[in-house]
Formats: sequence, C-alpha cells, structure tokens
Amino acid sequence: MERIEKSEVDELTTYHALNEQEAIEIARGIEDFFPAGAHLACREIGDGNLNLVFHITDSASGKSLIMKQALPYAKVVGESWPLTLDRARIESEKLMLEGQLAPGLVPVVYKYDPVLSLTVMEDLSDHIIMRQGLINGTKYPLFADHISTFMANTLFYTSDLGMNQQDKKLRVKDFINPELCKITEDLIFDDPYTVSANNNIPPAIEDAAEALRNDSALHLEVAILRDKFLTNAQALLHGDLHTGSIFATPASTKVIDPEFAYFGPMGFDVGALFANLILNYAGQQFWMSDDEARKDFRGYLLESIEDIWTQFDRKFRALWNENGIDRLANSTPGYQDYYMQRLLQDSIGFAGCKIVRRIVGLAHVADIDKIPNDEIREQAQRAALAIGTELIRRNRSAQSIQELIDITETALQR
Amino acid sequence: MERIEKSEVDELTTYHALNEQEAIEIARGIEDFFPAGAHLACREIGDGNLNLVFHITDSASGKSLIMKQALPYAKVVGESWPLTLDRARIESEKLMLEGQLAPGLVPVVYKYDPVLSLTVMEDLSDHIIMRQGLINGTKYPLFADHISTFMANTLFYTSDLGMNQQDKKLRVKDFINPELCKITEDLIFDDPYTVSANNNIPPAIEDAAEALRNDSALHLEVAILRDKFLTNAQALLHGDLHTGSIFATPASTKVIDPEFAYFGPMGFDVGALFANLILNYAGQQFWMSDDEARKDFRGYLLESIEDIWTQFDRKFRALWNENGIDRLANSTPGYQDYYMQRLLQDSIGFAGCKIVRRIVGLAHVADIDKIPNDEIREQAQRAALAIGTELIRRNRSAQSIQELIDITETALQR
Repeated sequence: MERIEKSEVDELTTYHALNEQEAIEIARGIEDFFPAGAHLACREIGDGNLNLVFHITDSASGKSLIMKQALPYAKVVGESWPLTLDRARIESEKLMLEGQLAPGLVPVVYKYDPVLSLTVMEDLSDHIIMRQGLINGTKYPLFADHISTFMANTLFYTSDLGMNQQDKKLRVKDFINPELCKITEDLIFDDPYTVSANNNIPPAIEDAAEALRNDSALHLEVAILRDKFLTNAQALLHGDLHTGSIFATPASTKVIDPEFAYFGPMGFDVGALFANLILNYAGQQFWMSDDEARKDFRGYLLESIEDIWTQFDRKFRALWNENGIDRLANSTPGYQDYYMQRLLQDSIGFAGCKIVRRIVGLAHVADIDKIPNDEIREQAQRAALAIGTELIRRNRSAQSIQELIDITETALQR
Repeated sequence: MERIEKSEVDELTTYHALNEQEAIEIARGIEDFFPAGAHLACREIGDGNLNLVFHITDSASGKSLIMKQALPYAKVVGESWPLTLDRARIESEKLMLEGQLAPGLVPVVYKYDPVLSLTVMEDLSDHIIMRQGLINGTKYPLFADHISTFMANTLFYTSDLGMNQQDKKLRVKDFINPELCKITEDLIFDDPYTVSANNNIPPAIEDAAEALRNDSALHLEVAILRDKFLTNAQALLHGDLHTGSIFATPASTKVIDPEFAYFGPMGFDVGALFANLILNYAGQQFWMSDDEARKDFRGYLLESIEDIWTQFDRKFRALWNENGIDRLANSTPGYQDYYMQRLLQDSIGFAGCKIVRRIVGLAHVADIDKIPNDEIREQAQRAALAIGTELIRRNRSAQSIQELIDITETALQR
C-alpha cells in the first residue's frame, strides 16, 4: 500500500475550492485516461457564480476532460448567498442515471468525489451551447429525435409507470432538493407576478410588467401550476432543461447541468424546452434580418417543437405499452390518453411560466437580451410575454401542441 | 454514573420482542410516572399481527400506560411477511407532531425507543374504539368538532400553505414510507378491481365483484385517484384514518395508530373517515332493528359527515387566511375556492375507494361483516358497493358534500 502523507489525507477529507494545479493532480488519478507522464494543461472556464469548471487537456494525446466543482455559495447579479454542496451529489447521481437511461445524450461521468463535491466528466468542447447555436441560426436536424428520447426515457423510467413504485419512493428521498427548488419556486412562480427586488424588468415594458402583477385570473393559473411544482412527485426531472443546459452539434445532443433535479411534474422539463425554443423564435426578429431566412428558421423552430412533442408522446407511450410496470395503468382503457393530455397541458402551462420569467424575472436569455436594437428587443419582449401568458391560461384546457404553435405564430405576426 | 451491566447494554442496543417483565422494567424507567416501588401489572393486549401492545397498570395509584412495540413482520389472515421496524419511528414521530398540532386529540407520548421500536404512551382504556361505539349506537356529539380540528390542523400545517416549503421537503424525506404505502396501493387501489388472492369476496355478491372487475370506466377513475396517492405530496397524512383508528367517548376523541403516515393527498384522510361512517350507516340495517331508532341514528351519521366537512372547510380556510405562509396562495382570488373544491372531490373519490375495498378486498369492517343475518348483510354489502362506486365516479365532478349524502340516502332507501 502506498504511504499517504498527512497533508494528502487532509486534502482528501476536507472540502476546499481547488486550484488548477490540484485539479491536474486529480485528473492524473483518473484511471486509464491520460497517458502516464502527460503534460496536462488546465484552465478554469466557469463563470464562478456557482461552480468552478476546470478544462484539462493533454495536447500530445489530444485527450481532455472537464472537472466541475460546486462552490458553497451562489452569486447572481452581484449578490451572494450560501448554497448546499449536496447539489453536486444530486447533479452527479442524476447525470449517471441519465447516462444509463439515455446513453449518449449526456456527458460520461468518469469520477465523482463527494468530499470535494467534484464531478469529472467528458469534455464537450467540440459542442456549443445550443442557445448560442440557435442565435447563430444553426439548425439541429437530429435534436427533436435526441431530446424526445432523453425526456421519454428519463421521465418514464423514474415514474410510477416505469419503475418499481417502492424503489421510486427511495429515489424521491435521495433527490429531495430544497435549496435549488426554492430558486425555481421564487424566481419562476412568484417574483414575476409581484413587486420583488429579484425582478429585472426592462424599463420600456414596465406597463406590461404591471399588467402581469394585476392579472389575478393569470395568478390563479400560476398558483395551480406552482402547486404541481411543489407537490407532484411524478418523475425525476432534469429541473432546468433550457437551451443553455444543452450542448449540441448538428449530429449530437448532450444534456448537462442537472443540479436542479428533483421529483416533480414531467411537464416542467418538457415546457422548459418549448419555452426556450419560443424565446429564440421571438429573438429571431433581430438575429435573422433577412425575411426569407427568418421565416425559414422560425418554421424550423416550430416544426422542432411539434416534432419534439409528437416523438416524445409516441416514445413515452411505446415505453408504457412495452415496459409499463403498473397493472392498473397498463390495463385501463383511456388512462394513457388522459395521462398524456394532462402532461401536454402541464408542458404548455410551464412553458408559459418559463417564458414570462425570462422577460421580467431575474435571469434573462441572450436570445432576447442581447438584441442591440431597443425597438426590436422591446417587440420581442412584448411578444414573448403575450405568448407566455396565453400559454399559462391554456394549462387546464389545451387539447393539442398545435395550440402552442398557433399562439406563437399569431403573437409574432402582429 | 450508574454502573451498567453488560447484559443490560446488550438489551439496550439490540432489538428483540419484549416480554411482559421487560415491559414492566421499561415502564419503571419512565420518569415521574409510576410511584417508586409500585407493584406494576402487565398484560399484552395486542392482536399480535403487527405489534405487541402492553398495558401496564398500578392499581394502587390508578396510573397506567400503553407500550406499543413494532414486530418485524405483518400477519394478515394467516399469512406473514416481513415489515420494516422503521414504521415505529414514523408512527411515533407522527404522533408527537399531531400532539403539537392538535393537542388533546392524540395520546400523549411519554417515550420513544428507536432501538426497541417502542412507543410508550397514554393509556386510553376509558375510551372505546369508535367503530365499536357506532355499532353499539353511541352518538359522539363532539366528534365532528374534534376530528375536523384534527384534520384541519394536521393537514394545513404540514402543507405548502402552512409550513415553510423547504422544511416541508425535509419532512417529506423523513416520512417516505414505502412498505406501508404499498399495502394501501395494493389493497385499496388495485386488488378490488382485478382477480387477486388478496381479495376476500363474500360469495353471495360475486356478481357485484365481477361487475367491479369489468367496469373499465370506473377503473379509469380509480387510476386517477391512485396516481394522486402515488405522487401528490400535499400534506402529512395519518394515512389510515378509519373509525378503528379512533378512540372515543362522547366527550373525547383520540386518533391513534398513524403508522401509515406519509405525504399524500389530504382527501385520503378525509375520505377514509367519510367511508367508515357510511359503512356504519349501511350496517345499521341490522344493528338498529327499530325503524325509528335507525332512522334517527342514520340521520346522526349523515349530519356528522356534513358537519365534519363544513367545519373542516371553515377551519382550514381560517388557518389559511390567518396563518398562510404562501404569498401567491394567500393573495390570489379564487385559488382557495379552487383548492377546497379539489380537496372535496378527492375526499369523495377516496371515500368511494375505501368503501369498495372494505366489501370485496382483504380487510373488512365489523360494522358489516359481523352482521349475523345473511340477507341483511348482503343488502348492506350491495348498498355499500353502490355508494362506493358512485362516489368514485364523482371524484372529478362533485360540487358539494350534499352529493355524498344524497348518494348514501338513495342507495339505502332501495
């Protein structure tokens, strides 16, 4: 057995934020990865708000990996508050589970160190963040297929339809995630509908923000959706499935950053995705200045949404029919249709909430916020709010994905 | 410090089923309870299916207490299967929490011993099990007030309306209760609607049981209710709130045996209570042979149901208005009405499920099963099934508690 120096033991048993040299040492310890004696280079590439992210490369072999270390605080817009390191465990366990349920659609995890809250994983530097790709006008022809598989597999197999119902309860326990859920509960389901220091309201649309605050019929629908987020442990969600949590190339899709994972309503994941495709649709008023090209790209975005839903619905039902474990759910005529329609309605309602918060809430999206032209940006913001609020209002009545598409098209033809 | 013998240490650190002498020794150790040197008598009074129950008395001082020790198995109708001792922790923690939220309405817990899975609590020998009391024709004039307070307080203050929403998530974790939930999921929501060895179908009503198995429209409603039981972590339930879990006198109500506690849909508790009052109503065809007396007692039962709902609804809303912690829930017009109506609908639906399982499922109720007259018993069983299935069918549409009352009256006038 190797002799371990006292100082090394200390390092291994105490959390501390790593420096680049320490990150390199840990990288060397990953078995069968880098060649022995490789000259490793390390760069910290995180934004430093929640995590350190080290990119470690060996130029000789061309091999590389990513190390993500959780920090014990969150910094958002200058403010800092403490945040549990347990989110690193949740993220890493969820990533590994996703890797089993949806192979190839998440980064491979090489190692998880609970003491350092550190996950060592596949480097995806050849991919770009999908939000940026869409802003650039890149189409992802395989994305609908990939992401519908990701959602159908991860949601079905962690629900009472697809996994042992007693094991599921133990998993619910493992993924109790109060601090990260609190962020969603406040920033998505509360702040945008009231006066809150957390809001970030563009001054030009203060009138629209005020209308949001005064629309008590809308608040009722938000309260109903929020109640589902708070109480409905339907499946293990990614919890933050926007286009900034997806690394993509036209040929590949990798879902990252599942630290918001918890057992919640499936529609929250599906809706997050729809919302962010719609936000990009709104932003294209600027990014695609050519009318024909914009029309084409927007058509692509709406087709993607329809495709994602259609494929998700088909794949989810196929898993249910082939691998469903619940006698009553499997044998009761009408239940599957009822279930899928509620899931569609939830997805549409949560999509609406996700859009609204990205316009008046704390954290915005580059698709719209980075538009340099004030007038076009304001148009996009107003259109997004009109779409978001209408989707929220349909959360109990929507009958098909076509409604979401029609609402989006109508709002942006104005 | 006292010297502890080795054998004592062993006893304290290892679970084993207690004998009466050991129970007495533990009773002596309860501080300031029995007088020093008291001559304690002990009798094991449990049915031995799930728990040992020791009744320990000191005739000189008139003081007494109850010790309930969980056994590591369950025996039901001759069969035995292993069952977690963790249910003793759940029961004892839930009892203590109920004692704080609804003082006077549960037995006082003197001690909980996690190693022995033992709860030492108030002796309620001066009360009788309410199911027997109702069979005897006893009225409980304060019961509606008591039980509505119990339900309003325990449910409101463990929901996202009445407790810190992050603390609630940690409590959800503490009360994950897979094994006991599994019993409910199978015996209440599955077996009665299929061919199952767990069923206990009175041969005389095999035709009605067959109709249950073939009614796929009913199965859809059961599947919808079951999904709520599986996924809707609305509040910390008692989980088994029938009249056999209530000790009563005309002046006092004590809810016992919360080992099925978990975070589920509130209507499951409310509905369990309604179901068991209706089962007694059905059984009175025999127990009250005098027409006038029966009419009077049945009137009392239905008034109790109406009273329980009305008072529960009023008390729950008052808690919400005065102590609600959720900004959106507190400030959104219409949300409270929406919430209470869904809760009523859940209660009615779950009441239906609870009635059906007591007629064709594994465990029946004395109110009906102990009727010695075959014809009257069969009438009561058929009436109860008619009521139960109709209540299930109303789980998405019921508008008031009056519907449940009308359904019950109509079925038993036939």
